[in-house]
Amino acid sequence: MTIKSREIGVGVLGYGMMGIAHSHGYQAVSMLYKAPVVPKLVAICGRTEDKVLQAANRLGYKRFYRDWGALIKDPEVEVVDNTLPPNYHYEPSIEAIENGKHIICEKPLARSYEEALEMYRAAERSGVVHATAFNYRWLPAVIKAKKMIEEGYIGKPMQFHGTYLQDYALDPSDPLTWRFRREEAGYGALGDLGSHILDLARFLMGETKRVCAISRTFTQERPLPSESTDKGKVDVDDISVALLDFENGAVGCIETSWSCSGRKNSLCFEVHGSEGAISFDLERLNELHVYDHEENSDNRGFKRIIVSGDVHPYYSFCWPLGELLGTGDLYTIEIAAFLESASKNRHFVPSFYDGLMSCAIMDSIVKSAQNGKWVEVRHQ
Amino acid sequence: MTIKSREIGVGVLGYGMMGIAHSHGYQAVSMLYKAPVVPKLVAICGRTEDKVLQAANRLGYKRFYRDWGALIKDPEVEVVDNTLPPNYHYEPSIEAIENGKHIICEKPLARSYEEALEMYRAAERSGVVHATAFNYRWLPAVIKAKKMIEEGYIGKPMQFHGTYLQDYALDPSDPLTWRFRREEAGYGALGDLGSHILDLARFLMGETKRVCAISRTFTQERPLPSESTDKGKVDVDDISVALLDFENGAVGCIETSWSCSGRKNSLCFEVHGSEGAISFDLERLNELHVYDHEENSDNRGFKRIIVSGDVHPYYSFCWPLGELLGTGDLYTIEIAAFLESASKNRHFVPSFYDGLMSCAIMDSIVKSAQNGKWVEVRHQ
Amino acid sequence: MTIKSREIGVGVLGYGMMGIAHSHGYQAVSMLYKAPVVPKLVAICGRTEDKVLQAANRLGYKRFYRDWGALIKDPEVEVVDNTLPPNYHYEPSIEAIENGKHIICEKPLARSYEEALEMYRAAERSGVVHATAFNYRWLPAVIKAKKMIEEGYIGKPMQFHGTYLQDYALDPSDPLTWRFRREEAGYGALGDLGSHILDLARFLMGETKRVCAISRTFTQERPLPSESTDKGKVDVDDISVALLDFENGAVGCIETSWSCSGRKNSLCFEVHGSEGAISFDLERLNELHVYDHEENSDNRGFKRIIVSGDVHPYYSFCWPLGELLGTGDLYTIEIAAFLESASKNRHFVPSFYDGLMSCAIMDSIVKSAQNGKWVEVRHQ
Amino acid sequence: MTIKSREIGVGVLGYGMMGIAHSHGYQAVSMLYKAPVVPKLVAICGRTEDKVLQAANRLGYKRFYRDWGALIKDPEVEVVDNTLPPNYHYEPSIEAIENGKHIICEKPLARSYEEALEMYRAAERSGVVHATAFNYRWLPAVIKAKKMIEEGYIGKPMQFHGTYLQDYALDPSDPLTWRFRREEAGYGALGDLGSHILDLARFLMGETKRVCAISRTFTQERPLPSESTDKGKVDVDDISVALLDFENGAVGCIETSWSCSGRKNSLCFEVHGSEGAISFDLERLNELHVYDHEENSDNRGFKRIIVSGDVHPYYSFCWPLGELLGTGDLYTIEIAAFLESASKNRHFVPSFYDGLMSCAIMDSIVKSAQNGKWVEVRHQ
Repeated sequence: MTIKSREIGVGVLGYGMMGIAHSHGYQAVSMLYKAPVVPKLVAICGRTEDKVLQAANRLGYKRFYRDWGALIKDPEVEVVDNTLPPNYHYEPSIEAIENGKHIICEKPLARSYEEALEMYRAAERSGVVHATAFNYRWLPAVIKAKKMIEEGYIGKPMQFHGTYLQDYALDPSDPLTWRFRREEAGYGALGDLGSHILDLARFLMGETKRVCAISRTFTQERPLPSESTDKGKVDVDDISVALLDFENGAVGCIETSWSCSGRKNSLCFEVHGSEGAISFDLERLNELHVYDHEENSDNRGFKRIIVSGDVHPYYSFCWPLGELLGTGDLYTIEIAAFLESASKNRHFVPSFYDGLMSCAIMDSIVKSAQNGKWVEVRHQ
Repeated sequence: MTIKSREIGVGVLGYGMMGIAHSHGYQAVSMLYKAPVVPKLVAICGRTEDKVLQAANRLGYKRFYRDWGALIKDPEVEVVDNTLPPNYHYEPSIEAIENGKHIICEKPLARSYEEALEMYRAAERSGVVHATAFNYRWLPAVIKAKKMIEEGYIGKPMQFHGTYLQDYALDPSDPLTWRFRREEAGYGALGDLGSHILDLARFLMGETKRVCAISRTFTQERPLPSESTDKGKVDVDDISVALLDFENGAVGCIETSWSCSGRKNSLCFEVHGSEGAISFDLERLNELHVYDHEENSDNRGFKRIIVSGDVHPYYSFCWPLGELLGTGDLYTIEIAAFLESASKNRHFVPSFYDGLMSCAIMDSIVKSAQNGKWVEVRHQ
Repeated sequence: MTIKSREIGVGVLGYGMMGIAHSHGYQAVSMLYKAPVVPKLVAICGRTEDKVLQAANRLGYKRFYRDWGALIKDPEVEVVDNTLPPNYHYEPSIEAIENGKHIICEKPLARSYEEALEMYRAAERSGVVHATAFNYRWLPAVIKAKKMIEEGYIGKPMQFHGTYLQDYALDPSDPLTWRFRREEAGYGALGDLGSHILDLARFLMGETKRVCAISRTFTQERPLPSESTDKGKVDVDDISVALLDFENGAVGCIETSWSCSGRKNSLCFEVHGSEGAISFDLERLNELHVYDHEENSDNRGFKRIIVSGDVHPYYSFCWPLGELLGTGDLYTIEIAAFLESASKNRHFVPSFYDGLMSCAIMDSIVKSAQNGKWVEVRHQ
Repeated sequence: MTIKSREIGVGVLGYGMMGIAHSHGYQAVSMLYKAPVVPKLVAICGRTEDKVLQAANRLGYKRFYRDWGALIKDPEVEVVDNTLPPNYHYEPSIEAIENGKHIICEKPLARSYEEALEMYRAAERSGVVHATAFNYRWLPAVIKAKKMIEEGYIGKPMQFHGTYLQDYALDPSDPLTWRFRREEAGYGALGDLGSHILDLARFLMGETKRVCAISRTFTQERPLPSESTDKGKVDVDDISVALLDFENGAVGCIETSWSCSGRKNSLCFEVHGSEGAISFDLERLNELHVYDHEENSDNRGFKRIIVSGDVHPYYSFCWPLGELLGTGDLYTIEIAAFLESASKNRHFVPSFYDGLMSCAIMDSIVKSAQNGKWVEVRHQ
């Protein structure tokens, strides 16, 4: 029937954790949404033949590739989804763009502002639909926060505090994976976690004029992943804390660490304005806490809204009834929104521009932490 | 100056924990309030001469008695404050009343409905001002809850749940003090803790038609407080759980235990009505959580109001600025309110009537737990 | 390859909310798990032709039926998943069982103990694998609670309190759907919500000897779903509160209502024992709060464990990394566990027996609410 | 009796909010503690004759002064308690010290490091016992946090975040009181609120090497307190956010604002170390949340300890039973501890040194916010 005509071919780079999560997202879009476009799982790409074959079978792809260039050139692939580590963002993404494929790329978009800028310019030139996979923008609670701020709920923004804290790198005996090497990851905790909270800061508060930061690498050497007992140098940050001077006049601060005892998945923000405040904690992702300073002073308080059910933005999209979302559901929402844009050739947000600006701030934070000064944030 | 003319003489029965807490309350009233009447600490009464002498000195009483009858007859004593255990509520309170003294008595008011009824009738006959020391009625958050319910915030009340749970009697090797003996205490956990939550249920929801309860005495014998190794029988409840059928049509449930692991001072209630809900937890005593079902469905949520500062009822009474209250502050608020009533010969609430009704419900709970049936609550 | 040999054919009755949720679960099992068996979506059944056709297409079923009897007889269907309302549980489930199909049936298992008993006996006779879809047993936090209790963490259980409170039926102008009619639903809030918390009470505490309950139907008439302005009678409960007398010596209480302002999805329990306590709230489903009374008294407190990542039971099953679960993920875990049992012809828990016992308790609650007495719970 | 010999004469400067709070503290010390020394309320000093007379009567002082110099010289006054605004800290404190009086002075200790240094040096020279009234150090939960950190609970400290946020200055129409003028207050939100969280940072983490800060004055003009419609300039900060580089290798950040919508009394800190974490929120002042990273990974979580009852440090000091503390109780604990030191001529902590170091950090923050650079913190 007409279903055929609305299909869009998808090729995914990577069958790791993120490759699986995205693949499930494509599948769930078809099932849970009344989506205007239905993804067709064309191909998946990975380095190791037996693993990528298994993944293709299990996840329901028609075929697999070991060479990302081949996947990109596959004529049935209309959308390339890049879930590879940052050192594989630049080249494959540009290749995809130049082959006219719509592209969604994991965060951080690149290892530096310069890489990201080229990627962004290529995408803009070619006219494909491009997305950075800042999945937390798709939290219904975050979408609600954004809407409330836009509608003036908090009045003039004055103060922002954001964190993304985890503890997975606290153990110094954990091996030196790509995450701990600038060459591959670009940034450390700042890129893996901080990029998310910086993106939410931009989403909610707008652009940052300048930053001042302090960073530490608590574990300076880690065992090489090989069988030897040798150690290698960690050349990225374990923790970064940065002051933010926003263009809207507000003052802010973000903290990010992957060596933060006690915090499993602590993506939090709070914004305070002249007329109200909003706070959020990913560990309780179905809740938004809002404070209306315009209420009578004896009735003010933070109100805990459970952002659930079809009264809340994008929620009905996901589960047929007002269930409580998990973080896994975000991939589905993100992909549904992206596929809709891609199928209509419509600009998508967050785009590569948002990925680029995130790199711009991160580069400024790295520089500030090195030279001990406030550093302006570049604007494209 | 005029201060003399506004003094009111106070005599306190008991120098234990509650005697000290009340004594501090009288002192603090003078200092923290612009009270219309100032207490004069006339006398304190206790059994052991050196201890009561010490207490009188430390707490600032003019004199002490070892015989409660003598304190009551002291002509300078205008108000008798009875902090003794329940088996010393009936006789001294009636004696005080018959001597024309205003009376505030600790809870539970008596060991049975019958005792309480005589106390109440004596007080009403004599015309003195009488109070039951249900101190949690004086929590600013509870006063606010009461006011909101009266003003219709929750609409028609439908559901009530209340608890008062502590863990202090969980250890079976703790001695058989008066609290564990019906002869002295009247009731067990039900009287010590449950009387508070039942009083709050009455305060917020009105009267109860009938109850059905289950009780347990987990520790049936405890060591005698003497040096012997003998044990004595516990003849009161460790835990009572009761269904409440309210006159206003709502359905309720209370739970009380002094052997509840994990709960230190867990006096909680939540009420749900046709238009809203309110919840409270003593462990966070400066907070009231309120839910307005009349708001738009995407903006509903429990709002955490910090009941602090002079915008909130009775709060400014206590500390000069909007500090966070402790439970110790409740004695001060309670005493300030009582002294004002006493000095004006004005009916006070909670009175002996409230103490009586609390006993009426407790007697029904005890009976229901024994005979396994719903039991009507007597009304005076 | 070998994948074929591990497939198991699935037929789903119903394409509503639960039909979709289960369908997604089957799909996700294939993608997210290294499952020993892979579901094949054979057929779906529904009343309205165009809707069931659409559903079959969107959800990926090979074919559809309008007659449940036909689906059950489909030789490719090995597992029947019954998501229909309670009045369609008895007959189709027994038919499926008698056709040798493994069966998973939504809760409440039946409209009465008698219906459930026949279903259970049929299933036991036939030897098929049978399951009641108490999906909240599959919450990683609940599984952890169960394990801790079994390992003695709380010592001897003494007290249980459970709630399942929602607000969706608070508006009296909502129409008289099947949920409000005993003929179709069997039970009201008690069956829709209470069956879950009663099942968790059994899971965590064991069997109940007797119950005493109070129920109310706040909204006694509702508009008929037709276009007329007529109203029809609600003959089930809006709220039920019940005392539970457990076989293990503990005392308990459950509250369930679908007209509870302020509560969206409030499935909570807390258990207190001689050595510790555990509490849970579905609105924060990734958290378990545990209290160890054996710790030094100055270090005791409720510990908030985020039940996430592969260190926690069944979690790794679901998402490839330690994401935060949503309620939608529970269907996937439930289905994965059931398919594994079904493929191995291994007894599954919760089985029809658990569905039966849930009905036994509910029948006792209904009877007690009617006759105002404690009622024994039947045991098969 | 012997009570006389243990008395110590107290004179209080100021009868405002803090004068009352401290006066109550002296009174409560006598009643609630088994204190080794009992305060005698000798004199109080204030500018307006009728008000100070009233205060003296109500609070129980033997006499009053309108001239602080006279109070200090009163031979019966052994302890001077300075609750005046910061511009009256320097001169009266030094005068008291030079008259050999023990001194407790409200925070911030002075309007600048230079003033504070002279005060500290004078106190050290004279040998009197000196205290800065950082009352939040006396929170039982904070004392417990300090002890746990010292005992190694969190391992090596890595990260600190602290806030002190209130909203009382959010309204731009509030008058230009002394709090908004550098000449009188020394610092703005930084001095009024920030001094507390900076003191707790020092208490828990040790000294800070350098700071980098950003400040804003959102309301740059306020109405003069007179009846004119003129406005005056605010020359202190409304908000300050600062990065802290600690000597112990940890990284930190503090935020302080008196124009922060949604925050009433939000003094929070969290510290993360290599082996654990601790967090605290003044709005729930009886709770400490602690996380032990050394536990098995499936049992880790923040534990909410209610710091109550005699098992916790200093708590039994305050109320005879394990009641929940309010902020008002802190003055009593603080004063009890100070009087004990004063009576024994024993060094007290927090002393003027702690007040001095707090000024050192605040001066660095002010300077950094002005010149946009990291600024070293002076050490005496």
